Amino acid sequence: VVANVLQAAAAELAARGYTGFRVEDVAAVAGVNKTTIYRRWPTKADLVEATLRRIAPGFREPPDTGNFEQDLLDLLLREVLWQTQEGAGIIRVLLQEPSEPDLQRVLKQLYAETFRPWLAVIERWKARGELAADCDPFLLVEMVSLPPTMRIHHRAQTVDESMLRASVAIVVAGARSLAKTRKAAHRRRK
Amino acid sequence: VVANVLQAAAAELAARGYTGFRVEDVAAVAGVNKTTIYRRWPTKADLVEATLRRIAPGFREPPDTGNFEQDLLDLLLREVLWQTQEGAGIIRVLLQEPSEPDLQRVLKQLYAETFRPWLAVIERWKARGELAADCDPFLLVEMVSLPPTMRIHHRAQTVDESMLRASVAIVVAGARSLAKTRKAAHRRRK
Repeated sequence: VVANVLQAAAAELAARGYTGFRVEDVAAVAGVNKTTIYRRWPTKADLVEATLRRIAPGFREPPDTGNFEQDLLDLLLREVLWQTQEGAGIIRVLLQEPSEPDLQRVLKQLYAETFRPWLAVIERWKARGELAADCDPFLLVEMVSLPPTMRIHHRAQTVDESMLRASVAIVVAGARSLAKTRKAAHRRRK
Repeated sequence: VVANVLQAAAAELAARGYTGFRVEDVAAVAGVNKTTIYRRWPTKADLVEATLRRIAPGFREPPDTGNFEQDLLDLLLREVLWQTQEGAGIIRVLLQEPSEPDLQRVLKQLYAETFRPWLAVIERWKARGELAADCDPFLLVEMVSLPPTMRIHHRAQTVDESMLRASVAIVVAGARSLAKTRKAAHRRRK
């Protein structure tokens, strides 16, 4: 039942946006009674949050390939695939409703959480000495993920894998190089 | 007269946004006849474009400090200062009017041009061998400029200079390191 409802909710959200989204319509598409839905998700915002949490890539397990660059590339590919394919319709309608306060609250909450798999990967490689201890992990994530997001949603450009590889390669080489410089300076001071 | 009109137009734009912006009001504030304005800028969109072109940092001369990292940092500081100080009011109202087609057309035109000083700096350092020849200059600009822009306008966070320095340091160290790897691979092949 949960899977059915959330699948129907994702389709409704992509088709109608947050404002036009109605729990009754989701119930009809999923073939369940609307009280069944309200029992589990008391408000429309709760149902939308659960829907996004089910399908957005930020809630999956972090990759662990044994290679920092590959881990970051995997995370970025998941994100871009979601933004251009399964999630494209949902993201398009949500971007058109910037002034819905309930929606803003849900997105703000989810936004913070979608950093989790990225932070897990970055902290793992920090512990292995690939990054300086004071390197801001959020900055690294933003440096690789914002350029493709901006190109896809705000400039209707296409993004190919070579662009994603290039940004990950620059960030990883840059962060490693700074960690080495930091260590060398530390050794000289001793 | 031109300076007066454009200064008045900048204040009106920050106060009323694009939709509420009226050439008559600009003329009154600048103390000129509105036909004087229309003779030079035939439409409201023309006047708004000229206003932004006069004050946005993307239309200033590129820095040339003799140091790649410092050049990029200077460009980034200009941009962030504009976004948080002189231009803050204008950017705030413009972001609230995503569906004004005339405004979209102006911003799209200006957006491409604001890359110019960045491209001038990056091409100069590419010619000096600091960057691989096939490195996408737009990607480097986006990697350093989107994280602060996103934090300022979409998450109401503050951005300090250390964050700007960190992103520039990572991009420069990363791009240099990739250029070196590329050259070494090239030598090995010969």
